Amino acid sequence: MALDNTWYTEQWAGQGSAISLKLKDKVHDEQSPYQRIEIYETETFGTLMTLDGLVMVTDRDNFVYHEMMSHPALFTHPDPKRVLVIGGGDCGTLREVLRHKTVQLAEQVELDERVTRVSEKFFPELCQSNADPRAKLHFADGIEWAAKAAPGSYDVIIIDSTDPVGPAAGLFSEIFYKNCFRALSADGVVVGQSESPLFHADLIVSVQKAFKGAGFGSVATLQFPQCTYPSGWWSCMLARKQGSATDFRRRDAEAKGFATRYYNAAIHAAASAMPQFLAEQLHV
Amino acid sequence: MALDNTWYTEQWAGQGSAISLKLKDKVHDEQSPYQRIEIYETETFGTLMTLDGLVMVTDRDNFVYHEMMSHPALFTHPDPKRVLVIGGGDCGTLREVLRHKTVQLAEQVELDERVTRVSEKFFPELCQSNADPRAKLHFADGIEWAAKAAPGSYDVIIIDSTDPVGPAAGLFSEIFYKNCFRALSADGVVVGQSESPLFHADLIVSVQKAFKGAGFGSVATLQFPQCTYPSGWWSCMLARKQGSATDFRRRDAEAKGFATRYYNAAIHAAASAMPQFLAEQLHV
Repeated sequence: MALDNTWYTEQWAGQGSAISLKLKDKVHDEQSPYQRIEIYETETFGTLMTLDGLVMVTDRDNFVYHEMMSHPALFTHPDPKRVLVIGGGDCGTLREVLRHKTVQLAEQVELDERVTRVSEKFFPELCQSNADPRAKLHFADGIEWAAKAAPGSYDVIIIDSTDPVGPAAGLFSEIFYKNCFRALSADGVVVGQSESPLFHADLIVSVQKAFKGAGFGSVATLQFPQCTYPSGWWSCMLARKQGSATDFRRRDAEAKGFATRYYNAAIHAAASAMPQFLAEQLHV
Repeated sequence: MALDNTWYTEQWAGQGSAISLKLKDKVHDEQSPYQRIEIYETETFGTLMTLDGLVMVTDRDNFVYHEMMSHPALFTHPDPKRVLVIGGGDCGTLREVLRHKTVQLAEQVELDERVTRVSEKFFPELCQSNADPRAKLHFADGIEWAAKAAPGSYDVIIIDSTDPVGPAAGLFSEIFYKNCFRALSADGVVVGQSESPLFHADLIVSVQKAFKGAGFGSVATLQFPQCTYPSGWWSCMLARKQGSATDFRRRDAEAKGFATRYYNAAIHAAASAMPQFLAEQLHV
């Protein structure tokens, strides 16, 4: 029953469980200044990128994550023009952001330039909007970027981070969210990935608390499936400076004028329904 | 990176992917007349039952599946009194059905009595309502049961089956659904598990077609996370003889008077929102 070494396996940290993907080949392996970047061709999930041995993206299922990290926030803001993506080095979120015609500037601040360069080579579809004149790719520390950003300089901030350990831990802190709050315009919306409802409910509760502590008036957790992330069930948290985090431009979402594979207006409205155990912990 | 033999691994058939659970011990292993039944104690998912090497139930995550297979159907029917569960030998669905005070009779028709006897020993919580005077446990072929059932004899039929291979294949067929249609009262509701939206969209489309072909006027697919089932993302399909499959007794669901961990009225309403790729295939 054990899998041989033709499988890639990620043990879900502390959860006594693991996912495995059958491999065809390993096509890239490098140690960047920040982490080990590996690329595999899998049998049924297309290309796979791992960072320090953790699944970041596969061809087959990244659409759910990237669409849910972008479109709900952008259809929540009344008129998003200036968007900041923190992390997101595979550029899949950036691509989705740029589908919105209101967007005039989409800045991506990724710590590790190698993640983006490797993605450009192995995930050309995700990077297909990198040359969009509205896109600006920076390779810098997102925490410092938010701290130094001019007040009110962004309409939407998307925190497309890795897990809350190592360099990404600061992206789940109240002080960072306070800097996001300050960097956002009056109608500003922020969204951050917030791990698994099944495995990390405590983290979800702490992120909600930190967003509220940072001054955001309304916070909503959105849930969605994500096969290759721990437990196969994922979430992001969306917060607004003013207005309800569950209100959105439904009519615009229904007439969005670009293709999606997971997101639509009904999915957007549904994603904030919370499982009973999580509703009780979040007091929603 | 390979897992040693202290892990249970299920390869997701035809999907080049697998889930593994870290084991503490194997506590039961038998070959019944129908299948191999194995019980393990896992490190973080509690007790695990597999049938022919496929995960059926774990202590940790079965609540999502059992609640979604029962409460949406029961809160859709205006006054469910007589319920038939086909399959469901672990009795977790039956337990949820019996939480509804309107229910006067809940019959479970499981092919393999050994599954239920083993569950009574290793999953006592799931079987805690087996002695309810309203519960009747039969060990028989559910396909034949539905074929022989008196017309209009049930208000709700729940098809809590294994995957559509082997003996369970007939539980995904139009002829079986026609027998369910006949066995249901005028307000009748049927629900059947319908596999993974990510892995088995074709099956979901075929189940929808079969329900409609069997005469059901309205059909809705409900999606939910299910960590230990293939892809971690699962679905069931709910069909009504009359009325809309997405309408339900929302006020009763909001005042349900019993505890749940996943299900609530908001989750019920949200579950029928279809991902864009599936909405296109289902023409909803």
